[in-house]
Amino acid sequence: MTKVLKIGGSILTDKTKPAAARPAEIQRIAKEIASSVEDLVLVHGAGSFGHISAKRYGLPQKFSPEGLRVTHNSVVKLNDLMVEALGKAGVSPMPVHPFSCTLLRDGRIEGFALEPVKEMIRDDLLPVLHGDVAMDINRKAGIVSGDQLVAYLAWALRAEIVAVGTNVDGVLISGRPLKDLTRKDLPPLERGIGDSSGVDVTGGMRGKLLELLDLADEGIESVIFNAAKEGNIAGALKGESAGTKVRRAN
Amino acid sequence: MTKVLKIGGSILTDKTKPAAARPAEIQRIAKEIASSVEDLVLVHGAGSFGHISAKRYGLPQKFSPEGLRVTHNSVVKLNDLMVEALGKAGVSPMPVHPFSCTLLRDGRIEGFALEPVKEMIRDDLLPVLHGDVAMDINRKAGIVSGDQLVAYLAWALRAEIVAVGTNVDGVLISGRPLKDLTRKDLPPLERGIGDSSGVDVTGGMRGKLLELLDLADEGIESVIFNAAKEGNIAGALKGESAGTKVRRAN
Repeated sequence: MTKVLKIGGSILTDKTKPAAARPAEIQRIAKEIASSVEDLVLVHGAGSFGHISAKRYGLPQKFSPEGLRVTHNSVVKLNDLMVEALGKAGVSPMPVHPFSCTLLRDGRIEGFALEPVKEMIRDDLLPVLHGDVAMDINRKAGIVSGDQLVAYLAWALRAEIVAVGTNVDGVLISGRPLKDLTRKDLPPLERGIGDSSGVDVTGGMRGKLLELLDLADEGIESVIFNAAKEGNIAGALKGESAGTKVRRAN
Repeated sequence: MTKVLKIGGSILTDKTKPAAARPAEIQRIAKEIASSVEDLVLVHGAGSFGHISAKRYGLPQKFSPEGLRVTHNSVVKLNDLMVEALGKAGVSPMPVHPFSCTLLRDGRIEGFALEPVKEMIRDDLLPVLHGDVAMDINRKAGIVSGDQLVAYLAWALRAEIVAVGTNVDGVLISGRPLKDLTRKDLPPLERGIGDSSGVDVTGGMRGKLLELLDLADEGIESVIFNAAKEGNIAGALKGESAGTKVRRAN
């Protein structure tokens, strides 16, 4: 039963400061993941590693070789921290860098080297991917968000559990999370969906929902949950849904 | 005119000591590469980053998740040094990690995400790959040498210049380099081809020749040259052959 877990950059980092990790949170998250690591793919956001340098270099609108390299190096540093914490928590994490294995077309994933990830899962290893820069066949280069990677991988692997951890309890209305959500709920919600706090060039909650609604159209449900609350990640990996389920409309 | 350049790990590192880079050599090499960087793909060996930890963990014969991760992390550190030096030399290097984009079958490349590399070349970026660990569909995981990567990329990109830089003047007979070499020269040579100095789990000169003779069979010539001698890299990238040319037998 393949599972895809996203951990938002806002949990792992302080998004208001450049390259500011939250080591205690990273360690807690690694332990929760270790409790249910079978057939799992982990994708984490870039948080303040990546978003801030991307913004500084004007990515993805501008093509900047230095910006690409600096932004990639920065998110790789966060990936190193996550992989190291997972190793200490007793799992077998393997870094997979989208910049090395992803081709975009107009900002959308056109090609992805899926086989190494599949082989890792078969061999009880945990692939750990992240939001990253990527080459783009029409735009030279761009950004592939963790959310787009989650939706792509969940689709390509026919995942049965897709859990998207953020720093809020789900899609909120008047401060309370919707239990579930389909595409027809989107228009009335759109004015109500606030941006995540801090800098986020990849679209915040709205972008996330658009990815997950496309995934739902393919028959794959997902849940948006609060990964900052202890126990929620372990629960989500067991299929317990605390948060907002994103479904296909009947 | 696509060019593929290999720089052996023995040039970039001291192969007798773990993770011992040669910063002055790395800097010199970066400057030589900068002189002729158009349509180039660079592959470097792992040297003492990689070979020593691979040996310690029994790779590739044993499957060790920790060994995979430690070995990968080590070669990535050498890649970071190479990429950084190239950036300072004024080119636009982009790290490409084979572990993220390569699938082996019984130790041979079965799949490789070529499109990001092609797009980098089109956009005047310099892809910088390296010998690495990789997932293997029949053996869980293995090692993909820089030499195998060079032959694969030269074939896949139909490279017109393939230059393999080592720490010797070419394939030596009585201390002097052969001018050229075809498959039929191999059997009498085999007792004469010594191992490179230091630890090398990927086959030394014999393994290199087997890769390049396969490539020659596909109609792509290559040259094995001494990258430790100043000027040779710049010359090789212009198609000047100081060293041993590996050709198809007539």
